[in-house]
Amino acid sequence: MKTLFKSVGFVARYDKKKALQLTESLAEHLMTKGLEVYAEETLAGKTKIRLETVPLERMHTDFLITIGGDGTILRTCITIPKPEPPILAINMGVRGFLTEVDPEQAVKAVDEILKGEFSLEKCMKLAVEADGTSFPDALNEVAMLTDEPTRLVYARISKNNKPILKCLADGLMVSTQTGSTGYSLSAGGPVLDPGLDSFVLTPICALSVFKPIVFPANSTLTIEAMRPKRILVLIDGKYKKVIDSRDPTLTVRRSKYETSFIRIKENFYHRLKTRLLFKGIG
Amino acid sequence: MKTLFKSVGFVARYDKKKALQLTESLAEHLMTKGLEVYAEETLAGKTKIRLETVPLERMHTDFLITIGGDGTILRTCITIPKPEPPILAINMGVRGFLTEVDPEQAVKAVDEILKGEFSLEKCMKLAVEADGTSFPDALNEVAMLTDEPTRLVYARISKNNKPILKCLADGLMVSTQTGSTGYSLSAGGPVLDPGLDSFVLTPICALSVFKPIVFPANSTLTIEAMRPKRILVLIDGKYKKVIDSRDPTLTVRRSKYETSFIRIKENFYHRLKTRLLFKGIG
Amino acid sequence: MKTLFKSVGFVARYDKKKALQLTESLAEHLMTKGLEVYAEETLAGKTKIRLETVPLERMHTDFLITIGGDGTILRTCITIPKPEPPILAINMGVRGFLTEVDPEQAVKAVDEILKGEFSLEKCMKLAVEADGTSFPDALNEVAMLTDEPTRLVYARISKNNKPILKCLADGLMVSTQTGSTGYSLSAGGPVLDPGLDSFVLTPICALSVFKPIVFPANSTLTIEAMRPKRILVLIDGKYKKVIDSRDPTLTVRRSKYETSFIRIKENFYHRLKTRLLFKGIG
Amino acid sequence: MKTLFKSVGFVARYDKKKALQLTESLAEHLMTKGLEVYAEETLAGKTKIRLETVPLERMHTDFLITIGGDGTILRTCITIPKPEPPILAINMGVRGFLTEVDPEQAVKAVDEILKGEFSLEKCMKLAVEADGTSFPDALNEVAMLTDEPTRLVYARISKNNKPILKCLADGLMVSTQTGSTGYSLSAGGPVLDPGLDSFVLTPICALSVFKPIVFPANSTLTIEAMRPKRILVLIDGKYKKVIDSRDPTLTVRRSKYETSFIRIKENFYHRLKTRLLFKGIG
Repeated sequence: MKTLFKSVGFVARYDKKKALQLTESLAEHLMTKGLEVYAEETLAGKTKIRLETVPLERMHTDFLITIGGDGTILRTCITIPKPEPPILAINMGVRGFLTEVDPEQAVKAVDEILKGEFSLEKCMKLAVEADGTSFPDALNEVAMLTDEPTRLVYARISKNNKPILKCLADGLMVSTQTGSTGYSLSAGGPVLDPGLDSFVLTPICALSVFKPIVFPANSTLTIEAMRPKRILVLIDGKYKKVIDSRDPTLTVRRSKYETSFIRIKENFYHRLKTRLLFKGIG
Repeated sequence: MKTLFKSVGFVARYDKKKALQLTESLAEHLMTKGLEVYAEETLAGKTKIRLETVPLERMHTDFLITIGGDGTILRTCITIPKPEPPILAINMGVRGFLTEVDPEQAVKAVDEILKGEFSLEKCMKLAVEADGTSFPDALNEVAMLTDEPTRLVYARISKNNKPILKCLADGLMVSTQTGSTGYSLSAGGPVLDPGLDSFVLTPICALSVFKPIVFPANSTLTIEAMRPKRILVLIDGKYKKVIDSRDPTLTVRRSKYETSFIRIKENFYHRLKTRLLFKGIG
Repeated sequence: MKTLFKSVGFVARYDKKKALQLTESLAEHLMTKGLEVYAEETLAGKTKIRLETVPLERMHTDFLITIGGDGTILRTCITIPKPEPPILAINMGVRGFLTEVDPEQAVKAVDEILKGEFSLEKCMKLAVEADGTSFPDALNEVAMLTDEPTRLVYARISKNNKPILKCLADGLMVSTQTGSTGYSLSAGGPVLDPGLDSFVLTPICALSVFKPIVFPANSTLTIEAMRPKRILVLIDGKYKKVIDSRDPTLTVRRSKYETSFIRIKENFYHRLKTRLLFKGIG
Repeated sequence: MKTLFKSVGFVARYDKKKALQLTESLAEHLMTKGLEVYAEETLAGKTKIRLETVPLERMHTDFLITIGGDGTILRTCITIPKPEPPILAINMGVRGFLTEVDPEQAVKAVDEILKGEFSLEKCMKLAVEADGTSFPDALNEVAMLTDEPTRLVYARISKNNKPILKCLADGLMVSTQTGSTGYSLSAGGPVLDPGLDSFVLTPICALSVFKPIVFPANSTLTIEAMRPKRILVLIDGKYKKVIDSRDPTLTVRRSKYETSFIRIKENFYHRLKTRLLFKGIG
């Protein structure tokens, strides 16, 4: 049998014993099937079986298996080489909205995947720039915050280089469809259907009256901090960098890269219903 | 000089003296310029000058002038023959988010328009169907409510014929980009950029946890009332009809018709800032 | 043994077979214990055992048992003679936030109550007046709406006869602490701790920027509809009346009457957590 | 004439020329009237006239004049010796919700105050404790945040030592009536009428479903951070301290001290309407 995938990389929460055990058993299973198996460097010496480890930023495999929650996925997508291989996300975390299978179904899922029985959910990412500073693409969102919790951001927002609005808030974020069920939702943003080519600008605790605004994905959004001059940029809640300039300005647009999730059966609205307390009554 | 428009129709608030006066002076001005001038039937006998009146549903003119607020525009768009002629909206109402010019600039605006100095803002409308019942297209939104204020709607929502979620609420609405700054905003919905091909499903006082969801404009959304069996459908806050069936079901999709507004200078975000208290501070 | 309660009245959902069955078994159980048992008139002929029925408005018993959801409780509290006897609320409805016991625990609960093993949760009610029109006290909330779903209410609000704010909205409600977890919560209001002497004014889909405001329970709140002149007053989602006057004005203050719930073990925050999806994660 | 106040202290924004000029002219005016005048230490050498300066923490005067915005007031109330003297707040800042008079009316206001023509608005403050750490009282709010913007707080909340709810959020704040129109409002909290003895617990971007809850002012609220172990406590957006312990726990209750504002004519709802964009339409 010819398989689609010849190599696989593992990224797992090394602070969870069960995640390590699942890594071991899945790795052995996939070796038996003839795949080359690699593990993220941080797993070195943590597993009972010997696994070849590589740093995440140099992991070039046909697909990836993440064992953890959304945090593990986000961390992976920020670091792996582009374009990204497809990801099978196994849920072993507090928050598993993006994940696909529970640990008990992992072996079965892997077997189906090797037989080609899966679909790919392609997720738009955001390319983020600031004057002289480059950032990793965001799968969920990019947030502009102050470096000081005691201060507010006063920002001017432009769409395709035309100023549209100003906002005074704890911060501002631009979120993808994928991210619309994460931080943006907590801050009061809408859910974006995965099929909608768009991103949403969501204020965080706005002092001025300012509602979330949904833009077409081909827009270029610019957020210029008029105050303060030192701001914090946070990508997917995982990567952060302080910008300190005369006019700290973020430019956000659709990235040319995507993240691909391997999906077997569940779909977006099923996950929304069952994992986000988005429930009807009766 | 060759003008683009040879005939014009007036729709005005006949309960406002100033609206009638402006109708008179603009109508005379346009007659002088050689245009055929018509007025909505309800204005018959209300103006000092004699105007030829026709019912709104048979008004076939090259463009329309509405003198009133958003309510006047919405009422006009529901009734006029399709496809709709462009609308110049003069603001003489409580709420004038959709309007373009103030009464003082009306003559100047009309002159510019006759010279072709304007742009057209095309606004998507929603086609709404229910079993055996047809509705006018919605420019702002279509809402499903109960006929009884004491009851809640328990509805099943489907996207492209696949059930996605259930909701228990005072009501549910589907709003266009244009409508996203109206009733939907009051109910907690996001603002949709006019360039985004989309509509938003916004619950009204949801009892279950249910957030606004933004869909691609090419989706077909179905809202099936599981309880009660008698529901009220409300289009643009102007047209209402009670459906009383075993399974009252609304189907909402993009209409093939649009509404076109004549715009001279202001744009969407300018209106958002100045008319919706969407202001930064300082 | 001397029991506290010598007579009991039953109010039950007569459209639910299980509610009728539980009424029968509990009634027999209580007759055996020597209590006088009455049932609401609507149950006449619906139960297999013969029960003496009286209209709700003339039911003078030492305590009441409601079998249904919050709707059954609210309907009961609106109608029974004042001051109200304590209520044991058995949950057999869609929404049972106010209820105390599940059907399975009903017999046990009743036995404990007869032994005096319970506490009383006293709930403030709102006295509602309009010019020449009197309303039943509200346990949850009183809402001012338009009689027409197509219209908005434009209201002037006064506190202790001093005008404080104006509001343009679908409607306005004043909610008690008890009601703060009901309709008011759906409309965006806060939760009021049961120990806080207060009520909250919550707008329904406000067009103007208007946030919920919490007032001391000894305030008198006046809501004057400036537009339209015909408004609908809705008490606890059960009682409604149209007021049609020059200046329809609602006056809301703390009632001298209370509703008392018999509580055995659960408390407010337990109910909030388990019945309102008010859950932490992990 | 006998005056109520014999000494006055000035606190002003030393980064604003106009604030310094107003300090000078008011100080001279009050010296002429025979009052002892002091200025906050940071103003030393900044004014053209010689003013006796003292550190804010040792300023014992009969009343205080602040010249700035809400930030200046909050900074003052955190630092001055307790009990606090009354404050006349002159508005010269971005956000002046708490302030009383504009610069142009300052001299007139001062003259009226010396004649006793004013009322005092007494504002409750919050006493905040953590294991071994003491904090200044909060006039607006105390917030518990993570020290790391990438992390969430997972907290257990108790009322009078009884656990009531858990919450997963960016942070949590407890806000006074005064603070209810500030940060808490931005985070989605209700407005608390100044006459209501209460405070409100408002989550900041809650991941779990968690609504603001209003408690009686005599409650003791405990917020225990279960994750992370290092949290940031922020008082009135001005004072911050990191707590790093096994179970970082905040205890919040009503303080025995109050802040008193000198009010001449405006009242709470007038300020709400005119300064918070809390406007009706039409």
